Amino acid sequence: MENVKLLLERITSRANANLREFQFDTRTFVDNTIEFDKLAKFYCFYGITTRHPIYFHFKNSSMAGSYFLGKANVRQSCIYKSDIRGDELKRKGDILDKNNPLPLVDDEIFVITGSLLYKTLVHSKSHNPETPEEFTIRNTISAHYANIHGSTMEGCFLGPFATVDLMNLHSCVLGEFSYVQAQEFFHRKIDPGVVWIETDAFKFKFKHESAVLDKYIGVNEKYQPRGLIYEFVSEKEAEYERLFEVVDLEPIKVPASSAVNRYAVIKPKTEIGANVLISQRAYVENTKMGDGSNAQENTFIINSHLEGMCVTAHGGKIINAFIGLKTFVGFNCFLHGKKDAKLTIGKGCIIMPHTIIDIKEPLTIPKRHLVWGYITCADDLSKNSIPIDEINGFRGSQSIGDMTFTGSGESFVEAFSQRIEHILEANGAYCNQDGEMNGHAQDDQQISYNTLQPYRSGENAGMYPSIRISP
Amino acid sequence: MENVKLLLERITSRANANLREFQFDTRTFVDNTIEFDKLAKFYCFYGITTRHPIYFHFKNSSMAGSYFLGKANVRQSCIYKSDIRGDELKRKGDILDKNNPLPLVDDEIFVITGSLLYKTLVHSKSHNPETPEEFTIRNTISAHYANIHGSTMEGCFLGPFATVDLMNLHSCVLGEFSYVQAQEFFHRKIDPGVVWIETDAFKFKFKHESAVLDKYIGVNEKYQPRGLIYEFVSEKEAEYERLFEVVDLEPIKVPASSAVNRYAVIKPKTEIGANVLISQRAYVENTKMGDGSNAQENTFIINSHLEGMCVTAHGGKIINAFIGLKTFVGFNCFLHGKKDAKLTIGKGCIIMPHTIIDIKEPLTIPKRHLVWGYITCADDLSKNSIPIDEINGFRGSQSIGDMTFTGSGESFVEAFSQRIEHILEANGAYCNQDGEMNGHAQDDQQISYNTLQPYRSGENAGMYPSIRISP
Repeated sequence: MENVKLLLERITSRANANLREFQFDTRTFVDNTIEFDKLAKFYCFYGITTRHPIYFHFKNSSMAGSYFLGKANVRQSCIYKSDIRGDELKRKGDILDKNNPLPLVDDEIFVITGSLLYKTLVHSKSHNPETPEEFTIRNTISAHYANIHGSTMEGCFLGPFATVDLMNLHSCVLGEFSYVQAQEFFHRKIDPGVVWIETDAFKFKFKHESAVLDKYIGVNEKYQPRGLIYEFVSEKEAEYERLFEVVDLEPIKVPASSAVNRYAVIKPKTEIGANVLISQRAYVENTKMGDGSNAQENTFIINSHLEGMCVTAHGGKIINAFIGLKTFVGFNCFLHGKKDAKLTIGKGCIIMPHTIIDIKEPLTIPKRHLVWGYITCADDLSKNSIPIDEINGFRGSQSIGDMTFTGSGESFVEAFSQRIEHILEANGAYCNQDGEMNGHAQDDQQISYNTLQPYRSGENAGMYPSIRISP
Repeated sequence: MENVKLLLERITSRANANLREFQFDTRTFVDNTIEFDKLAKFYCFYGITTRHPIYFHFKNSSMAGSYFLGKANVRQSCIYKSDIRGDELKRKGDILDKNNPLPLVDDEIFVITGSLLYKTLVHSKSHNPETPEEFTIRNTISAHYANIHGSTMEGCFLGPFATVDLMNLHSCVLGEFSYVQAQEFFHRKIDPGVVWIETDAFKFKFKHESAVLDKYIGVNEKYQPRGLIYEFVSEKEAEYERLFEVVDLEPIKVPASSAVNRYAVIKPKTEIGANVLISQRAYVENTKMGDGSNAQENTFIINSHLEGMCVTAHGGKIINAFIGLKTFVGFNCFLHGKKDAKLTIGKGCIIMPHTIIDIKEPLTIPKRHLVWGYITCADDLSKNSIPIDEINGFRGSQSIGDMTFTGSGESFVEAFSQRIEHILEANGAYCNQDGEMNGHAQDDQQISYNTLQPYRSGENAGMYPSIRISP
């Protein structure tokens, strides 16, 4: 165990060096999080397909329970029960900017150095135009169920359930359950529960009240997650264990155009339509997944019906709900209907990332609404939503409830619509019978997994031998 | 599949080039053996322990269902359901020859190039003083259940159930069920069923009659194995499949000093004593494995009792038998007692490799006997055995039944005794409570397995991505 302890020492000291202006000591989190015996117990797995470039090299690292797809280079890092999913990495020859049509010189690759990623999702691609071929995560520590959806990420701490989306962060602290999608931050500390989307054209900002965070998702004095959302997720964790105990599970019967990852939990009474993608560590129970819908990593969809073309972004939770056609449920949303208090969401809605809906009476959200914040009843809904067509007319500054919006509403709607279309397309929702418009749902089907083991004993226990996989 | 077909083309053409003087076309064997869909289906596995040097590098190869332990470098080869077991490879600094005490410059490594190993066991270490750090297998094709127990092996074809032991072979054909342990052969064709042990001091030779081979182990016109021994082995093959379907099996309860490989089949009513080693692809049913006994790869031990310190060499089969203390059962022996016709073998016996005992009446072999050939009754026994103490006095040439012996009986007995002691020691039979005298039984306990997957589709289907594993 000596070497894995030394590794974590080094990671915390580097992260602390990056964050010294905030006097933020990452050791509090790390010392209370890592269970060393588990590092020496769980295998990691690397997906082999013919559709994705293969290159995997790690050295001096611990990677218990983690999944990797695509090209990755990992050094001096501890990646625990995390998903490093490279199916959106750019390819050699891709052109990023039509105005500056320089093709990429190489396939994009994850380069993870000196970092601790704990139950974290890593997806998407680098949004750093300075290093388009490299999805960089360096000297960074991320906590339970954080989402790193784009890079560069250097010298950062991401609290539990924090999301950083399509942007770069340098020497930043993200509070628990905060969401940022704001191009590039340097040396900032983001408060817990902030939802912040900003481009040159607009800015959307909301912040959950601390009482809401206390109830749903906070941290204790040991910087460990607590609250209803964490309890909900923790209760289900045992369900995943069995998936790791067998090599080949009996495949779930689904249409030929759909992919159910063998590390997803599919419980009884689940129906899966065509062009559906269910990713690893997704949990689906007693639910109808309509054609073209998806359930991404760490999502929970229970007793629900997704009508079709519905996106459930990483970490989204949908319980006792009907979700209308082409509705988008953002990162880490917690949509908690009850058996006798169904949540009904109309078609074409956008549920902003990190939205909490927890109702005791039935609630219906009309079609084409933008929804954010914290909603427990119809009254909350009126202060936390707006028809999308109305935003289209926004100019200047607006406030609705605790949300502030500045800039062009039209650009905002346009950006979201494009993104949802992109997600549906990338996930294979539009795949046709001729196999055109293939996406992840189709490309991920013929996947098999290399399982790679740690040292079990001695000073290297918990570390992995170096491995290099190439075509 | 194109690339794996090309690979096999290349392997056969190289082997044929080495064997052209015999006009032996390995294509007959290869074309009728390989089931291409299986090459793209089965994973291979690499053992990770803290007791064995780690280095595994393969390129341009197919390795479905195969197991590797220790250092290995594999190129341009197809290794199918084979065990490449490197726990006896030499280590850096080892001194081979006390009269010439030069330490090895590096750990010994398997170097397998341009070869097809089909359901083959590879074990032991290089016996080539020219390349002591390299266990070489080049341009070689081995058939079902062949044993390559030592190298160098270049440009050879080994028929089904053939064994090459502690020696080097260059451009040789070994007939089915032949056994050779004779230092070094160049450009020879060995008849089926030959058992040939030769050193500077003695020569032991026996040849099974063709009628016996016809009944127990022969090949058909497609060079595929047939006969009772092959049928016996084939019937049990399905039992192994389940072992490959789970990641972690409930461990079998055994004394702390014993190792049961998780890829061994252990059926009910089996008792396992202390310091016992049961290797992968061993099959043990309703049997008492006395202290210090072992069951090596491809052994079957059924309805039997091994008193203790018994060696069952690779491929040995023991059914309805009692095996006395410190008795040695050689490679690929088929000792077939019946429920109402028990086979009893006294202590300290040596059952020569490739011996067939198939009885209808009970048979007892007295203690300290050397046994060989084909035995169906007491009369056969008298022509196929001799008290070991009697051999001790042999000088010059002797014949007993179809066996001929030349040279020093004392050297022969001495060599075998030393070897059996070495095997027991290497396997950990003498391990004490202080953990001294550790061997494979102890070193192999904390093993875990990397499972590595082939390409499943496309032109590379059946091939594996390149992988390099290092400490």
